Amino acid sequence: MKLETGSKLVMIGDSITDCGRKHPYGEGIFEGVGKGYVSLVDALLETAYPELQIRTINMGIGGNTVRDLSNRWKTDVIDLKPDWLSIMIGINDVWRHFDEPKIKESHISLEEYESTLLQLVEQVQPSLKGLVLMTPFLIEANPEDAMRKQMDEYGMAVKRVAEQVGAVFVDIQAEFNKMLDYYYSGTFAGDRVHPNMAGHMVIARAFLNAVGYDWSRNG
Amino acid sequence: MKLETGSKLVMIGDSITDCGRKHPYGEGIFEGVGKGYVSLVDALLETAYPELQIRTINMGIGGNTVRDLSNRWKTDVIDLKPDWLSIMIGINDVWRHFDEPKIKESHISLEEYESTLLQLVEQVQPSLKGLVLMTPFLIEANPEDAMRKQMDEYGMAVKRVAEQVGAVFVDIQAEFNKMLDYYYSGTFAGDRVHPNMAGHMVIARAFLNAVGYDWSRNG
Amino acid sequence: MKLETGSKLVMIGDSITDCGRKHPYGEGIFEGVGKGYVSLVDALLETAYPELQIRTINMGIGGNTVRDLSNRWKTDVIDLKPDWLSIMIGINDVWRHFDEPKIKESHISLEEYESTLLQLVEQVQPSLKGLVLMTPFLIEANPEDAMRKQMDEYGMAVKRVAEQVGAVFVDIQAEFNKMLDYYYSGTFAGDRVHPNMAGHMVIARAFLNAVGYDWSRNG
Amino acid sequence: MKLETGSKLVMIGDSITDCGRKHPYGEGIFEGVGKGYVSLVDALLETAYPELQIRTINMGIGGNTVRDLSNRWKTDVIDLKPDWLSIMIGINDVWRHFDEPKIKESHISLEEYESTLLQLVEQVQPSLKGLVLMTPFLIEANPEDAMRKQMDEYGMAVKRVAEQVGAVFVDIQAEFNKMLDYYYSGTFAGDRVHPNMAGHMVIARAFLNAVGYDWSRNG
Amino acid sequence: MKLETGSKLVMIGDSITDCGRKHPYGEGIFEGVGKGYVSLVDALLETAYPELQIRTINMGIGGNTVRDLSNRWKTDVIDLKPDWLSIMIGINDVWRHFDEPKIKESHISLEEYESTLLQLVEQVQPSLKGLVLMTPFLIEANPEDAMRKQMDEYGMAVKRVAEQVGAVFVDIQAEFNKMLDYYYSGTFAGDRVHPNMAGHMVIARAFLNAVGYDWSRNG
Amino acid sequence: MKLETGSKLVMIGDSITDCGRKHPYGEGIFEGVGKGYVSLVDALLETAYPELQIRTINMGIGGNTVRDLSNRWKTDVIDLKPDWLSIMIGINDVWRHFDEPKIKESHISLEEYESTLLQLVEQVQPSLKGLVLMTPFLIEANPEDAMRKQMDEYGMAVKRVAEQVGAVFVDIQAEFNKMLDYYYSGTFAGDRVHPNMAGHMVIARAFLNAVGYDWSRNG
Amino acid sequence: MKLETGSKLVMIGDSITDCGRKHPYGEGIFEGVGKGYVSLVDALLETAYPELQIRTINMGIGGNTVRDLSNRWKTDVIDLKPDWLSIMIGINDVWRHFDEPKIKESHISLEEYESTLLQLVEQVQPSLKGLVLMTPFLIEANPEDAMRKQMDEYGMAVKRVAEQVGAVFVDIQAEFNKMLDYYYSGTFAGDRVHPNMAGHMVIARAFLNAVGYDWSRNG
Amino acid sequence: MKLETGSKLVMIGDSITDCGRKHPYGEGIFEGVGKGYVSLVDALLETAYPELQIRTINMGIGGNTVRDLSNRWKTDVIDLKPDWLSIMIGINDVWRHFDEPKIKESHISLEEYESTLLQLVEQVQPSLKGLVLMTPFLIEANPEDAMRKQMDEYGMAVKRVAEQVGAVFVDIQAEFNKMLDYYYSGTFAGDRVHPNMAGHMVIARAFLNAVGYDWSRNG
Repeated sequence: MKLETGSKLVMIGDSITDCGRKHPYGEGIFEGVGKGYVSLVDALLETAYPELQIRTINMGIGGNTVRDLSNRWKTDVIDLKPDWLSIMIGINDVWRHFDEPKIKESHISLEEYESTLLQLVEQVQPSLKGLVLMTPFLIEANPEDAMRKQMDEYGMAVKRVAEQVGAVFVDIQAEFNKMLDYYYSGTFAGDRVHPNMAGHMVIARAFLNAVGYDWSRNG
Repeated sequence: MKLETGSKLVMIGDSITDCGRKHPYGEGIFEGVGKGYVSLVDALLETAYPELQIRTINMGIGGNTVRDLSNRWKTDVIDLKPDWLSIMIGINDVWRHFDEPKIKESHISLEEYESTLLQLVEQVQPSLKGLVLMTPFLIEANPEDAMRKQMDEYGMAVKRVAEQVGAVFVDIQAEFNKMLDYYYSGTFAGDRVHPNMAGHMVIARAFLNAVGYDWSRNG
Repeated sequence: MKLETGSKLVMIGDSITDCGRKHPYGEGIFEGVGKGYVSLVDALLETAYPELQIRTINMGIGGNTVRDLSNRWKTDVIDLKPDWLSIMIGINDVWRHFDEPKIKESHISLEEYESTLLQLVEQVQPSLKGLVLMTPFLIEANPEDAMRKQMDEYGMAVKRVAEQVGAVFVDIQAEFNKMLDYYYSGTFAGDRVHPNMAGHMVIARAFLNAVGYDWSRNG
Repeated sequence: MKLETGSKLVMIGDSITDCGRKHPYGEGIFEGVGKGYVSLVDALLETAYPELQIRTINMGIGGNTVRDLSNRWKTDVIDLKPDWLSIMIGINDVWRHFDEPKIKESHISLEEYESTLLQLVEQVQPSLKGLVLMTPFLIEANPEDAMRKQMDEYGMAVKRVAEQVGAVFVDIQAEFNKMLDYYYSGTFAGDRVHPNMAGHMVIARAFLNAVGYDWSRNG
Repeated sequence: MKLETGSKLVMIGDSITDCGRKHPYGEGIFEGVGKGYVSLVDALLETAYPELQIRTINMGIGGNTVRDLSNRWKTDVIDLKPDWLSIMIGINDVWRHFDEPKIKESHISLEEYESTLLQLVEQVQPSLKGLVLMTPFLIEANPEDAMRKQMDEYGMAVKRVAEQVGAVFVDIQAEFNKMLDYYYSGTFAGDRVHPNMAGHMVIARAFLNAVGYDWSRNG
Repeated sequence: MKLETGSKLVMIGDSITDCGRKHPYGEGIFEGVGKGYVSLVDALLETAYPELQIRTINMGIGGNTVRDLSNRWKTDVIDLKPDWLSIMIGINDVWRHFDEPKIKESHISLEEYESTLLQLVEQVQPSLKGLVLMTPFLIEANPEDAMRKQMDEYGMAVKRVAEQVGAVFVDIQAEFNKMLDYYYSGTFAGDRVHPNMAGHMVIARAFLNAVGYDWSRNG
Repeated sequence: MKLETGSKLVMIGDSITDCGRKHPYGEGIFEGVGKGYVSLVDALLETAYPELQIRTINMGIGGNTVRDLSNRWKTDVIDLKPDWLSIMIGINDVWRHFDEPKIKESHISLEEYESTLLQLVEQVQPSLKGLVLMTPFLIEANPEDAMRKQMDEYGMAVKRVAEQVGAVFVDIQAEFNKMLDYYYSGTFAGDRVHPNMAGHMVIARAFLNAVGYDWSRNG
Repeated sequence: MKLETGSKLVMIGDSITDCGRKHPYGEGIFEGVGKGYVSLVDALLETAYPELQIRTINMGIGGNTVRDLSNRWKTDVIDLKPDWLSIMIGINDVWRHFDEPKIKESHISLEEYESTLLQLVEQVQPSLKGLVLMTPFLIEANPEDAMRKQMDEYGMAVKRVAEQVGAVFVDIQAEFNKMLDYYYSGTFAGDRVHPNMAGHMVIARAFLNAVGYDWSRNG
């Protein structure tokens, strides 16, 4: 298990991360961490490793692209002084190409996406104990689907950035792909993007596996 | 893993089970299984054992006692023809002694509790492949606390019934007790009864461990 | 133009047809015909052929399958004595296989779908001046997609029924396929099923072309 | 068809244009173009000319007069750099004379109306590929009706401005007049101003006819 | 002044009468008489003739035609044993011809209107001290307007019935016509049917003048 | 009739005046004048003297005392340039002594009341054609009632100010007193302050009688 | 202190008693006893005499008269088998004479009031350990006020019934009268009927004094 | 009785004090003092000592700690110039250690608590006639419970401060402890913190006893 006692874990992203978290800081009583994968990660850490006292803070905001993360990076990441940081961004960066194809200014190109992500990561990494980069995803089995294809390209950019800086890389798209061998996308998300509890569990399990979580612990 | 391919799992109980499930049957799209431990069990089964295609139905109703279960046993359990059945009842049976002490007709005695539970179980067990009985609980560290003490007695009754009929017994109270070595009750539930996500995860993990769930699977 | 002066046109279906229509009869002031393709058909008939005085009644109900249509066929179709009838059903018949895969009783098999549709059509056709059968659809470009594939099969059943009884056949799936050469599904429907105005216009145009609507009229 | 590939079409006006559009810019997912004639124009362009990729932006605001347009002309028209622009204004300019007759400061005189409209048009026309001026209207058959009469005068002013600058002129009043040969005003609008879907279709058809839309296309 | 001390005055009609009155009987505290002309009549009787102690009951129901009145005549008029009765019905009987022209079953013909009205009046008149028949109206200055014209014909039927049975006849249309010499219809009602306070005052004044109300009294 | 053609009448006061009027200026469509006595005055002027085209503006604000009027006198009275002005203030000035007896700073003394009222009136009178001062009131028959007694004293102050400046004086308390010979206070206002329609009619009639309104006109 | 250990106290009445209590039985968690004097009595009994374990049930219903009590006497009093019963009824019996003076059928005469009350009391008294009759009241200092006067007469009837059957009599009107030596009615109730917390405390104190409550106890 | 005629009593604290009071000052009509113990104190003072005319102001704010009191001490206490002041703070100071154990910055240490409280008291005491310090509490019978234990320590700090400055000290925890001999915590508060009416009465009675309230007065 890579997270040490007393670690502060900040998880940032878009609506998949947000899920009704508290503002301005997504933690504390009354479902401060929201109801998505962040709350599952938090609950699974707390119940299997109660002695570690890991503090999880949800900083997701619905609709965000990497450009939006950039605008709030100082207040929403750096000022929080996280020990561990996870980032899952890119769904909206890609999606806007497909649901608002004519509104070009809402599209984030692969170049802008990758360079911005790298720049953000470089700003914060020196002060981190651990960094986790998760791919954006589309819950779609067909790799030739246009949006899935572009999402895969952005996921490859995440991988490149992770390798470049030595971060933990989590391929969420690959995890959903495994599920799609057994279930159709509609079982996880009506719009192939916003998951139900089972879909959020896919993300939480992938994240925890990547940081060395021992599932059999405290059983 | 005890649950076989294509099993139908019915989970019945009170508000801890209910958690906003769909009526009359707690399953299907739009959070049909609610947002509590049932949805966590469902999500964990689906993601670790996608090939088993286990169908989970939440039949909890807030405020229920074992007397209420008895009134709806035919329509809400037997008619559903479950393969596996889990029961977690008793919190309200005990609680009313403490928050409505003078309203005697709202109290369920230990005798009524145990005999009714046994009778319900005997009605349905012959047609089941598996039966899981979970104790009621109070998230309270002090075993001398009056309500905790009575809850423990009702939990013992659950154990006796489980042994009598050969059911899987899950000691939820014991699981919360382990957590209370590290955290105060308020971290899991403001009123020591209705858990947040971490508290529901305690229940879900205990249930799954009891039915042989392999946590490292599909990792 | 096939619809004669003073015709009564009843359009029945599921949520795609319904779109907030008035109950029990979907017509009249205050958006009685709803806000979907039925209202577009109605508006296009009224503005291009004001002298025909065609009366359009929306009888769609969200979530309906062909089994549901069967249950309300007498009151909702036959008793209305339509001159023309359009039916667009089948999306939910197929969808439940994919978003509630384990709830088998919510699935309508191809056999039940086709035989029920035929039976309904045969009951009402003798008293009609015209019958239009429209295929169900999934706004998805990949014909190998599992749900699209099954939808196509149900669409073929519609075609067979149409040929058998000599009804006007409208291939809505084919119309959306043409659009998908230019746009991704997300431009028409976030969940690939419930269309925005542009998607409803695709349906309305297909229907009107099939009944000989003269677009250049009254221009 | 006059609109070229990739054109940006801005449609500005009052509540007839607005119809619940998104702010500050009326476009994009979640009914950004509203639910009125703008959304019909958008849907008809998209479905008949998918390859043109025309971008439609609704900039209507309920209650606006030409004086209000003047106040927001820079931010809401010029800054958007439209290729094509349509303007339908004047209903409120006239209406206030009739429903608030004593509140003189809410009345826009014919002189102010015409000169302001001309001035706005002259500011923006040099940078446009096409300009469409539509008349305000009252859905009232009687040309001697006091409000209809004044509306006709404002409509004549629109015509004069259109001729002066060489814009496409669309006589919406004339289109409704044709309809009123067959239907009473109440079929289109309870208050003779805010149209239902059929009324909005009258406007959309008139606009599209004026810009050379080929209705039979892609049929 | 024709109404005697202690009279019970029942006023029945459609939405113009109703105006949010209490159900099942439109009287008593908390605006039981609604907020329309009935409440003005009640307030003017109470303040100018406090000693008469006249009891006013509003029995209007929105959307009603004379056919609806017929269905509730026993419970809503006869059982109340009124001393005085006023009826203002017919707007919806006419209006449906114009806003739902194709839904023929919602239209009340002049014949049905007149004969039903006469029949209702004859049933109740023997037990009344006074009967007031008010015409339906359209706040429209042009007597050649199609709906105004038909409304005038229904008004003439009211006059014939009034003469036949010797009832007090009040020509509400004529009263609004006088107002329309000075104001456009929009000053009284956006849809020319549902009046604002000034429009309700026109009705209340006409009613009171017809029953001999002394305006200068108690001044 | 004292109000001349085209007069602008501003009526200012507290919640009795306000009654849900439009902000910032209480006039125009959609019940801009509110639903209280101001709307009755407006409706009675409009229907009896349509040719005068009198413009009524409601500037009441709930809870106001004379001190509050003073704070908004410039923007809410002087800047409007009224021809006629009516003031009805003082109920809250007195009431606070009785429902918040210990909160001394919420009480307006008779001295402050009278001197402030005089000062306000003197500021605006030179530019007026007519000024109407109405007394505050308590709908209570017993002149020895403590609150009624104090209200009478404030009413006397209104009278003194009216005489001093030559304004029209309207004794609303006296009007309600007449009514209380026949009815108990509860018939007009549950709390003896906020009138129902009949109570507002008492005020409206008193105001109109004071300005020479001819009730029999246009009958 | 007259109430014995384990007594069941039922308090019945109108809106003053009701105050948002739980239905069908006004007791138990979540403010089952409402928020008025019943909850104060309950709280004062519980805190001063915790060992007595007195069970209080609120059976008030807003708007009730003695006639309404009669209709629900069996289910709402007798079936509950109270040890002690308190009744406070009559405010609405009197009030309707004053706020709905013309609706005679809503008035309960003194004769009906007294005879019904006596009959109800006689039905239940044999099975009671204690009966408390409280007068209705009007928070009005002037004994010559018409409504106060009539309320006093109904209060005298309560006294006669209490004497006749040997019940504890509590003169709530007299208690409020004492308060009115120091405060105006508005300090306790805007409408002189529905009290604030201080007004409810007046009632609770009077009731408790009448049953021998020792205020200094457990201090 | 220590409070003199005309005293102004300010009661400050957290949500237990607040209970829906009016802002910015918690007094006056419409439940300005809230619905908790402050309103009970106010009602009991008003009804037993009406002649004293004591003015009670509720300045509680939910969630407050002593650090929050410090931030608003000038505007919310000193500027109000109270004669008597009561303070009940500390529950949140302690609670956050237990329900948000990892969010260290939300915890108020015993040292900060005591020194801040002392400092606040010293600022205001010179201008007071009386000061009452009440302990924070947890409605929990077990003195070894971790949160109860810490709450007791903070309560001891209150006692020390009270002794140091000569303030009236009220041990609310001790009062609840007495109640817990007879009832379980759930009878007073589901979460052992936010009391129902009975729990608020415990606080109100303790406060009043401490200031010499004579319960038998005005009986």
